[in-house]
Amino acid sequence: MSRLIQSTQNPLVKFALQLLKANHRAEQRLFLVYGWREIALALKNGQTPKTIFLPTQYDDRNSNWSGTILEYAPTSTIVYASDEVIEKLCYGDMRNEPVGVFVKPEWNLDRLPSSVPAPLIAILDQIEKPGNVGAMLRTADASGVTAVIATNPRCDPLNPNAIRSSRGSIFTVPVAVASLSDTSEWLQRFGIRVYATRVDATRTYSDFDYRGPTAFLFGNESLGLSDSWNDIATESIKLPMLGQADSLNVSNTAAVLFYEALRQRSVAS
Amino acid sequence: MSRLIQSTQNPLVKFALQLLKANHRAEQRLFLVYGWREIALALKNGQTPKTIFLPTQYDDRNSNWSGTILEYAPTSTIVYASDEVIEKLCYGDMRNEPVGVFVKPEWNLDRLPSSVPAPLIAILDQIEKPGNVGAMLRTADASGVTAVIATNPRCDPLNPNAIRSSRGSIFTVPVAVASLSDTSEWLQRFGIRVYATRVDATRTYSDFDYRGPTAFLFGNESLGLSDSWNDIATESIKLPMLGQADSLNVSNTAAVLFYEALRQRSVAS
Repeated sequence: MSRLIQSTQNPLVKFALQLLKANHRAEQRLFLVYGWREIALALKNGQTPKTIFLPTQYDDRNSNWSGTILEYAPTSTIVYASDEVIEKLCYGDMRNEPVGVFVKPEWNLDRLPSSVPAPLIAILDQIEKPGNVGAMLRTADASGVTAVIATNPRCDPLNPNAIRSSRGSIFTVPVAVASLSDTSEWLQRFGIRVYATRVDATRTYSDFDYRGPTAFLFGNESLGLSDSWNDIATESIKLPMLGQADSLNVSNTAAVLFYEALRQRSVAS
Repeated sequence: MSRLIQSTQNPLVKFALQLLKANHRAEQRLFLVYGWREIALALKNGQTPKTIFLPTQYDDRNSNWSGTILEYAPTSTIVYASDEVIEKLCYGDMRNEPVGVFVKPEWNLDRLPSSVPAPLIAILDQIEKPGNVGAMLRTADASGVTAVIATNPRCDPLNPNAIRSSRGSIFTVPVAVASLSDTSEWLQRFGIRVYATRVDATRTYSDFDYRGPTAFLFGNESLGLSDSWNDIATESIKLPMLGQADSLNVSNTAAVLFYEALRQRSVAS
């Protein structure tokens, strides 16, 4: 039987509370995951837990996820926690949701799949908002994106809000964090053609054939792409803009492109 | 020469500060708009200002927007405000951005365009997160959506965060707030076919022809579509989900559908 922690003064709880600060997480090389689904997907996809705080009650609709958690997490990492403890460890309006402390993985380019015949890559250059990173990962998972590379990230993909917005897809899509030059070299090595969404592009996204090795490159929400990308061969593409808006939310742009690539790849050629 | 307000005790400022509370805005039938671009688009697209608080300084990149504001706002509604006043009226990390108090419009179905041969309609049923509402409006504007109807909204489209996330597109796309039954009647009157995105749908979105009068229906982020929609003839569609995610962020789903409709409509038939 696992322990039940009822005091917020418990050393495990005090340790986890310190991790609410980003610099503590960085120092300790740990990260936090909130939510049934998110923790279940982290465990199922190979992340290493240190402590999982489970609430003592949960809705039936979470029973599958809690089953997965109990199946994949070593018993020694599981503790049950009172409502008060969970509430202290959570943020926002979460209730009856678990909190997990995980060992921060090294996510470099070597971990990405290298034998896919026509990889579909998403490059997130300096994307800043956790909600956008999360939505992009979620859509990448669904649309068959092979891997996501974050260059010069302004938002750590393992930021708790990014994980939450991804609904756990951050653990199901191979993600790497890499410099622009390493990324460029990696793309060249695999003969991947890079399409950059740019406001001033003249050619429409749907005029291109994405059935070969393809990468889509997305720049920062307000600043656009780093100038350094100008030295790297890319094809500039745009989405039609028929109204008064001059750009879309970056995750919406990504969704259109990922699904256009998937549509082309699904149509018999 | 317009007035310069330097005190947060000024009656105009005190009045605007009360509007930070949603219930005060509802009582006064007023709403707030933040930002150069957002206020300029509100004015240019016919919204009625009561007071526009302009900062005394601004970046060059906002000079077009400030020009539009000064062109469209009656002089009597313009006041200049000190940094301290603007900061008090703003939220988040906004600096040197204007704040506008506007008269809340009646947005019913009658205001929607009715003579478009093949309208493309987006129905947002109980969408809850301002960021999603905003992103959907922004993408609707860009992709040529004719009108957006919010049914049983859990987030007022004129919520400050929704306006901000839309980057002002809420003023450029015709929006109506309506009951489900009125919406259903309206759709029937114009012979509009309704496609509902449902997790358990069996047919893929790209198998349908969206060149005729088309509406896309989107349900709440966690609850999905209201049961009441079951009584209304809709075609259930889904996006392929190749990974472990079982749904997308709703604005990402919308982006894929809007641009697929536009792609089909752009291809010579």
